[in-house]
Amino acid sequence: MIIDCHGHYTTAPAAHTAWREHQLAGDARKYPTITDDEIRESVQGQLRVMDERGIDLTIFSPRASAMAHHLGDESTSAAWARACNDLVHRVVTLHPGRFAGVGQMPQSPGVPIERSIGELRRCVEELGFVGCNVNPDPSGGYWTAPPLTDCGWYPFYEAMIELDVPAMVHVSASANPVFHATGAHYLNADTTAFMQLLQGDLFADLPELRLVIPHGGGAVPYHWGRYRGLADMLARPEPAEHVLANVSFDTCVYHQPGIDLLFEVIGADAVLFGSETLGAVRGVDSRTGHHFDDTRRYVDAAGLSEVDRAKVYEHNARRVYPRLKTVPSRL
Amino acid sequence: MIIDCHGHYTTAPAAHTAWREHQLAGDARKYPTITDDEIRESVQGQLRVMDERGIDLTIFSPRASAMAHHLGDESTSAAWARACNDLVHRVVTLHPGRFAGVGQMPQSPGVPIERSIGELRRCVEELGFVGCNVNPDPSGGYWTAPPLTDCGWYPFYEAMIELDVPAMVHVSASANPVFHATGAHYLNADTTAFMQLLQGDLFADLPELRLVIPHGGGAVPYHWGRYRGLADMLARPEPAEHVLANVSFDTCVYHQPGIDLLFEVIGADAVLFGSETLGAVRGVDSRTGHHFDDTRRYVDAAGLSEVDRAKVYEHNARRVYPRLKTVPSRL
Repeated sequence: MIIDCHGHYTTAPAAHTAWREHQLAGDARKYPTITDDEIRESVQGQLRVMDERGIDLTIFSPRASAMAHHLGDESTSAAWARACNDLVHRVVTLHPGRFAGVGQMPQSPGVPIERSIGELRRCVEELGFVGCNVNPDPSGGYWTAPPLTDCGWYPFYEAMIELDVPAMVHVSASANPVFHATGAHYLNADTTAFMQLLQGDLFADLPELRLVIPHGGGAVPYHWGRYRGLADMLARPEPAEHVLANVSFDTCVYHQPGIDLLFEVIGADAVLFGSETLGAVRGVDSRTGHHFDDTRRYVDAAGLSEVDRAKVYEHNARRVYPRLKTVPSRL
Repeated sequence: MIIDCHGHYTTAPAAHTAWREHQLAGDARKYPTITDDEIRESVQGQLRVMDERGIDLTIFSPRASAMAHHLGDESTSAAWARACNDLVHRVVTLHPGRFAGVGQMPQSPGVPIERSIGELRRCVEELGFVGCNVNPDPSGGYWTAPPLTDCGWYPFYEAMIELDVPAMVHVSASANPVFHATGAHYLNADTTAFMQLLQGDLFADLPELRLVIPHGGGAVPYHWGRYRGLADMLARPEPAEHVLANVSFDTCVYHQPGIDLLFEVIGADAVLFGSETLGAVRGVDSRTGHHFDDTRRYVDAAGLSEVDRAKVYEHNARRVYPRLKTVPSRL
């Protein structure tokens, strides 16, 4: 079985996106009626790609770049997160066994993350979601929030542990013209999060907390020697033992040499299969004739043992997202 | 011959550092007398490492983390840059053939980069420096300056071209608690700069401009497929032809798999040997028994042809920093 841990609902019906535009324009109106057929239609492309690539199940969350926590205020983000999560829930319900839901949190600059616990509970307890996405920079590229190791995060982490769900650390759109979202902001956030965790002692305090750092861990595997050296200088444990006991990277690295390095350096135990489909990079690589984000090809060609491949494709995801056991088998 | 393109004067005499502390405390005093012997003494460790590793010449600039452009105002940064550059000049003069100078610019948040042209000219025309370091984020981790492709940079770039010197794009200390300097801010800045250049058209306007992105290009080589895919989506040329005609990466990647990926993906033409010695990571890797930043070992073991190795160790640096021809041969 192949589980893709990183899919966003980037093809939501136009009426959903239009409602958001009205919301941001201050034009409060009722959320539109979206039919089941419209939802089925909207994920046909996603399902086709999953079938073509042999992906059984996608862990599916609202479009990351559209979370845009920097827009509006706390109530704006609360209504938008709720609408996005409800829509993902409908996708999951309409396609048993093909999707598992992950929730967008109603974060807003300056608002304590604690205030997202209610939506987290609703996502898990009422919608049956298996995890959440947390944004380490709700300002959208101005980085005004405290680090992930700040004690302000602890009540939220404790709720995650109680609910037995992990979080993917995932920023949203960049409002800062220096940062291209998918070409800089996303990767910078991954790198930044990892270094915060290396410096801090979060997992000594919360040993059951599980985080996923997407996009192959940002710059981290390529600079693994730097991180091992910095851990040594900071009198921290080896990052493979310290951070990677609680943190996984995904395989959203869009070429063979990058995936090969990821497995060579990080190994198979802390890597979850992911593709970010349909997502950041949608084109076909003229060198290979295949889509850049067809990460299954790279993982298949990475020379993993059968045992390791099964970890990356399924077992690690089941360990990190234990609520996947509630997802009906499609077989 | 082996040229290290990336060395910072991290061991400057204590009196120099103390003067900076007084300056920041508002205690204006005369710059201290520092003797030639004190300067010679201060670089003994640097020279010993260079000799042990067979490095003939280091392109040497003031300590990057101490530039701290976010502290004080324009006049603070102007006096500090001048003091730092003068000290590097003395190191260069006292050790003919071992060092070539690169200047710190007197940047300050909100101050146009154009106002650094005077110090750039002084560094090149009076001190004989071969390049400069430019900080894409003088705010120290709050990213309030425009991108490197902004037209505000053009007068500075035109002065660089006239003087025939390149710039290394290098941030300084992080004043933002979310970013560890050497573990996040540096790499994020490298990634950010590359993506700005990929999006922009700077080198169509200024085909003679040469930039160096340090730390192995941040996250870029590891995510080369993402950048090729983004270039395709943005209707930009292949980044290898577009950006890398004017941009080089250094080899400050502190483990063998990272260096191997760098050469596999980027090739030898756009890579300059560098080590960041004595710099970010000073310890010994317990796995290899060698210093993490002994990048010569990784480059030697990367399986390059003799021609490519000579490019990386010497010829690329001479192309990017043509004023190196003014440095006396130590032989």
